[in-house]
Amino acid sequence: MKNIAVWGFSWVPAFAHGLVRDLRVRWALEEAGLAYESRWIDPAQRHSQAYRRKHPFGLVPAVEADGATLVESGAIVYAVAEQSPALLPAERRIETLTWMFSALNTVEPPLWNLFVIDRLHGDEPWAALRRPGAVEEAQARLAALADTLDGREYLLDRFGAADILMVTALRFVRHTGLVAEFPSLDAYVKRCEARPAFQAALRNQLAGYMRHAPAAA
Amino acid sequence: MKNIAVWGFSWVPAFAHGLVRDLRVRWALEEAGLAYESRWIDPAQRHSQAYRRKHPFGLVPAVEADGATLVESGAIVYAVAEQSPALLPAERRIETLTWMFSALNTVEPPLWNLFVIDRLHGDEPWAALRRPGAVEEAQARLAALADTLDGREYLLDRFGAADILMVTALRFVRHTGLVAEFPSLDAYVKRCEARPAFQAALRNQLAGYMRHAPAAA
Repeated sequence: MKNIAVWGFSWVPAFAHGLVRDLRVRWALEEAGLAYESRWIDPAQRHSQAYRRKHPFGLVPAVEADGATLVESGAIVYAVAEQSPALLPAERRIETLTWMFSALNTVEPPLWNLFVIDRLHGDEPWAALRRPGAVEEAQARLAALADTLDGREYLLDRFGAADILMVTALRFVRHTGLVAEFPSLDAYVKRCEARPAFQAALRNQLAGYMRHAPAAA
Repeated sequence: MKNIAVWGFSWVPAFAHGLVRDLRVRWALEEAGLAYESRWIDPAQRHSQAYRRKHPFGLVPAVEADGATLVESGAIVYAVAEQSPALLPAERRIETLTWMFSALNTVEPPLWNLFVIDRLHGDEPWAALRRPGAVEEAQARLAALADTLDGREYLLDRFGAADILMVTALRFVRHTGLVAEFPSLDAYVKRCEARPAFQAALRNQLAGYMRHAPAAA
């Protein structure tokens, strides 16, 4: 991969800083030591024909590399990890993919659901009614993950591509105390977030939001 | 892959027949021409220690093959497809993975949300309040997918692993008329469901439910 450009949103409200999914791609690129530039799409323009040619669903991230466009954070992280044996040891490909799909299709859904309830619909009557059940579902999934991580530092025996997706999924409920209820999970998230590559990725995402912040009212 | 056994639930209510995610794995195995046996876990036993040793989240599918256990429908379909160039051409690996993640992380969430609202919480007051917004979100995602599929028979130029995940995601809203609102999508689903491998997979899943159905009250 050469001439890499990562598309993220030009600006999002503070509650979404550090949560938008281009963070995953930036983190993987930083871990792999691959240089990249940032491109910013105004969320109001994400369904424009021009941007839809890059991303059929008008979402971020999209990544341009070597003249081709890649979408879907899971697939992009996998493609980046293929260039980096540290992120994806060749002999653990299926195990890594298993935890990647687990992060995005088993762990993320109940956590994202709670994020949507609290952060996108917090003022609506249905959200208050739905919340207790949604919290229980999130807790059950987190408890099972905590059991798995008990006594382990990472999902596999060392940090890899699956941890990038899992930690960024867990971050969707950072506005709650749910992760902290499980010491093994809490330590896992902190261990991964302490990595210099995560910190650099976060800085790069936030720098875009600062640059494009709307003028104060 | 040899000595393959697919774990599904022994019985689920009729509204979930043909929707539980072991269908994806059965379909991929049928397409690949790989023989498999079926194993059934009683949903009431899915969080037992014995089953949790197979699946850390107590879900289905789990697949036992060559003495190892695989979980996550996305990862299992990928592992099966790797044995079948028809499902996963070697030169289209990243494109296939892109659409696999798209199916499970971009298309499935709003459709699953509507399934949960209507089929798991249909009687609750919050569900009626939430439903109109959830329908709009599902429609927007389906419209973008329909644009992509317009003029195409499959996600890539021929049927493959990504179609298995996409079609089974689209089936989560079969109780609504949403897919039929988009002729290209509707034709795509019907085209894929007409495949003998899909029909065989469905028969094998339903045969288990028939065998384990509770005695009529």
